[in-house]
Amino acid sequence: MIARIIPKKNCLEILDQRLLPHRIVYLRALTPDDAAKAIKDMATRGAPLIGCAAAYGYALALNQKAPSGWRELSLRLKKAAAVLKASRPTAVALAYAVDRLHGEAEKFISENCKKCFDKTAYLRLKKLISDEAGAVFGEDVLANKRLSLSGAKLFKRPVNVMTICNAGALATAGIGTALGVIQKAWEKGKIIHVYACETRPYLQGARLTMFELLRNKIPATLITDNMAAHIMKTAGIGAVVAGADRIAANGDTANKIGTYMLAVLARYHKIPFYIAAPVPTIDMKTPDGGKIPIEERSQDEVHKIFGSRISPKGAKARHPAFDVTPAELITAIITENGIISPVTRANVEKITA
Amino acid sequence: MIARIIPKKNCLEILDQRLLPHRIVYLRALTPDDAAKAIKDMATRGAPLIGCAAAYGYALALNQKAPSGWRELSLRLKKAAAVLKASRPTAVALAYAVDRLHGEAEKFISENCKKCFDKTAYLRLKKLISDEAGAVFGEDVLANKRLSLSGAKLFKRPVNVMTICNAGALATAGIGTALGVIQKAWEKGKIIHVYACETRPYLQGARLTMFELLRNKIPATLITDNMAAHIMKTAGIGAVVAGADRIAANGDTANKIGTYMLAVLARYHKIPFYIAAPVPTIDMKTPDGGKIPIEERSQDEVHKIFGSRISPKGAKARHPAFDVTPAELITAIITENGIISPVTRANVEKITA
Repeated sequence: MIARIIPKKNCLEILDQRLLPHRIVYLRALTPDDAAKAIKDMATRGAPLIGCAAAYGYALALNQKAPSGWRELSLRLKKAAAVLKASRPTAVALAYAVDRLHGEAEKFISENCKKCFDKTAYLRLKKLISDEAGAVFGEDVLANKRLSLSGAKLFKRPVNVMTICNAGALATAGIGTALGVIQKAWEKGKIIHVYACETRPYLQGARLTMFELLRNKIPATLITDNMAAHIMKTAGIGAVVAGADRIAANGDTANKIGTYMLAVLARYHKIPFYIAAPVPTIDMKTPDGGKIPIEERSQDEVHKIFGSRISPKGAKARHPAFDVTPAELITAIITENGIISPVTRANVEKITA
Repeated sequence: MIARIIPKKNCLEILDQRLLPHRIVYLRALTPDDAAKAIKDMATRGAPLIGCAAAYGYALALNQKAPSGWRELSLRLKKAAAVLKASRPTAVALAYAVDRLHGEAEKFISENCKKCFDKTAYLRLKKLISDEAGAVFGEDVLANKRLSLSGAKLFKRPVNVMTICNAGALATAGIGTALGVIQKAWEKGKIIHVYACETRPYLQGARLTMFELLRNKIPATLITDNMAAHIMKTAGIGAVVAGADRIAANGDTANKIGTYMLAVLARYHKIPFYIAAPVPTIDMKTPDGGKIPIEERSQDEVHKIFGSRISPKGAKARHPAFDVTPAELITAIITENGIISPVTRANVEKITA
């Protein structure tokens, strides 16, 4: 798969996914602010991937001129962490990555701030943070692979599956979460056909998931989101697999708007509903779905498609970017540490322990 | 509301609803073929309205040069009926209207064909058919009003409602079906807010329903189809109201793709789900939903939005234009002859008797 983010010597190159599948263009982030903007504007997206982008974005704070001393450095890093964490509120992988790198940086500073500040110390910190960003990325690659292999085992006989948004390579550092599971199940002959919901308003399903499935030669059909129930009823869907932006301690899961809809429809049609996500998606500090902040984005993103206005002037719209699927509707959560099923607080705790 | 179809001396002017809400343009149909094309290409749409358009379209067969005799006339009318009935398969109002006018014409011809064919007879038939088309139109205006008043009584306290596609004035000859009910309930203070699903792929909700609600100053918010479950759960929806393209004898209802989805979601959220439709929408010859032909339209209509391609080249898509909601998910069917509830074969029969 085409590279999503490329850390370079003095910048981070970010694939502008808004232009996919038609154009492949990279943005160049020179500062944490640039990276935060690319995340906020959805040039890069997907919960695990924005975690990685934020990690490398944080490291850009150390790609600039060395500051005059520890105090200035500390302030600079604090600002970088804040701007990155504020870029998108729902996906916890982003906060997880930034907190992890910022924690390392603060530890380093507190251990060294009694000593004289010099360029060597600055470069050591830079190396440390850059390595840690690489670790966040590398761990996601590994988690993708492990959870995909683990999830594929849930498919006992060949079925048609449905997915929403894009939880593939384009959303992660590796082969993807939901699409990773589908890929591995397909390689084992357990997937007949994939139905991809287009996922309005950003059309990640139409633009990105169909792009990945075509590239990987997995038989797939695009549907509009409002076809999901009809296709479940008439096309014989054997499983629904989606990614996650944040999983609360009780298993309630925030993911792209429409995921909750699919979970309700799957329950009605007696279809297993799976969430595939790496462990850093689980936020034990959030007790349940009601406490997950749901990002409300600009209504213009609903009113306009590729710049063309679809609604009359003066019309109002809502744009919640995510919804929450209650644990009781989720058959299993697939992680790199194993399968959570049934989805209960105790089983979520066991996987994260 | 702006005129949807305007019968003129030698043509039928048809509002091109594909250009709404931004441009108001009328197409001119001179022949039944022109009218059939406008229906097939969805320049005009909405089950009751395409019934009216087909009726006036059929009458256009008599706007041409008088034929040489009864036999030629009969063939011409047979061809007109066939092309109009073939234009769209799901909505039964279209077949109902064409069969009704064609039946009248055949009756007239069989009563007169022993006599000499002359221009006077031709003009008498022309007047008869033109009046009958006017009757189809006029009956829909009346049915809209009566079912809307009847449906409004179902609203006992002020609620938020959700609707899909456009079942308003733009879909009918009168004030609409689902939107007629909403309009009348709103006038009585029983509607707080309307949530309109945008209704991919043709965006009738975004383009047409929002246009009508804005014009009628009814507070409304546009949502994408995949937000429906989240909005039901978080915004407090008290009822879902949709139109219908065909109601089978047992109450199973075909309507715009996504209606079945809303019915399943409404059941899960314990929200009443209403279908509003005039009696000619009920097809007693179709025993149940499984026998309703579901039109599969071009996949290009899914791949492209206003000419912009959203999916990668080579991608496949499905485009079922309708789905079937089983009677058991419908709280009540609202007709001009009264309310069908519970929705059973016996109660459907009673209303149509």
